[in-house]
Amino acid sequence: MERFRWQVAAVAAVGLALALEALPSVLCWLRAGRRQQQRPPRRQVLFFPSQVTCTEALLQAPGEAPSGPPAGCRCSLPHGESSLSRLLRALLAARASLELCLFAFSSPQLGRAVQLLHQRGVRVRVITDCDYMALNGSQIGLLRKAGIQVRHDQDLGYMHHKFAIVDKKVLITGSLNWTTQAIQNNRENVLIMEDEEYVRLFLEEFERIWEEFNPTKYTFFPQKKRSH
Amino acid sequence: MERFRWQVAAVAAVGLALALEALPSVLCWLRAGRRQQQRPPRRQVLFFPSQVTCTEALLQAPGEAPSGPPAGCRCSLPHGESSLSRLLRALLAARASLELCLFAFSSPQLGRAVQLLHQRGVRVRVITDCDYMALNGSQIGLLRKAGIQVRHDQDLGYMHHKFAIVDKKVLITGSLNWTTQAIQNNRENVLIMEDEEYVRLFLEEFERIWEEFNPTKYTFFPQKKRSH
Repeated sequence: MERFRWQVAAVAAVGLALALEALPSVLCWLRAGRRQQQRPPRRQVLFFPSQVTCTEALLQAPGEAPSGPPAGCRCSLPHGESSLSRLLRALLAARASLELCLFAFSSPQLGRAVQLLHQRGVRVRVITDCDYMALNGSQIGLLRKAGIQVRHDQDLGYMHHKFAIVDKKVLITGSLNWTTQAIQNNRENVLIMEDEEYVRLFLEEFERIWEEFNPTKYTFFPQKKRSH
Repeated sequence: MERFRWQVAAVAAVGLALALEALPSVLCWLRAGRRQQQRPPRRQVLFFPSQVTCTEALLQAPGEAPSGPPAGCRCSLPHGESSLSRLLRALLAARASLELCLFAFSSPQLGRAVQLLHQRGVRVRVITDCDYMALNGSQIGLLRKAGIQVRHDQDLGYMHHKFAIVDKKVLITGSLNWTTQAIQNNRENVLIMEDEEYVRLFLEEFERIWEEFNPTKYTFFPQKKRSH
């Protein structure tokens, strides 16, 4: 009887110990599963000049008549992906907010994308440079007319940033001014980064400039600048 | 005697099981220790305009006479850190190679840093835009004269990148042209990223352009361009 009790105790001890031993592995496995389920943060590098492609399918407003250029558009442009279409997609993913801090903004496609987001109820705020607001084909006037808040500098330095923040989660930044000249002809780069730290730092910079360019603080009429 | 044997077996089983149980934790602990020992990859965001500070101590060539501005320089400028001094530090960390892909380059401090690296035996290669090579105070002629290889475009689009790659390990990129105007007056950003993937992609872009701008392939003399 005594021997039997010791046998049971030994088996129970081994069982318990094995169960305890397996625990970290099981936890590890569960944690790894959860990590795999999480989508990896978005990282993309776009180089320009961008191939000229049709972006109509991307820019179709939901309420527009189906007679407009549809998803199966037959215009003569290529319909594949390009650096511009990837940039448009990254912007059009916005659901709640879009901050734009842009030296020059005259690309009609990017202008339409921003107006679309505004129509969808996304809170759009734009900071730009006062000297480049009147650029040929500038989108700034159109955005203001559509009811989007735009603020600009009134000093001699350039507001030379070229970044966007989508839903306070994704930072889009690089050398690219949002002009057709730059998109189609220049060597440029754009980084698209889902990165908490970078987004925080650039959002702080945006809010600093937004507050500084508050239109109630205008002190003088913008004057001509000298060099780039 | 039999009872004693079972007691020994039970104790041995528990001991073995406990040892096995502890194994993953010990491995985990060792691995965590190794991770902590590794320096975290460098990530820095610089915003401009930069405070004007004295950068002489950083730019002192090793062979220069000690009568030049020393580490304890007494000039009237502040001697603390600034965005420019941080950018200089990131560049001056180069030991083997430096690729520069810059639209405009006229900052004398950044020019001196690049010349210092060249003197130290770092392999420096520069790509720039042909229209901005003759900018007031351009550093490009000085770099060429010092024996640094410079290549430039010969087409109508701008070579508008503003990036550097240090030792094929650190990418420095952003909106900043390397001019005193931009450094001291503009709103600008520069990212410093020790990131294998970004470095690989930007190095590929550099090599593509380097090969394309090969001076043996010149086809015509640069002409005036139109708009930015």
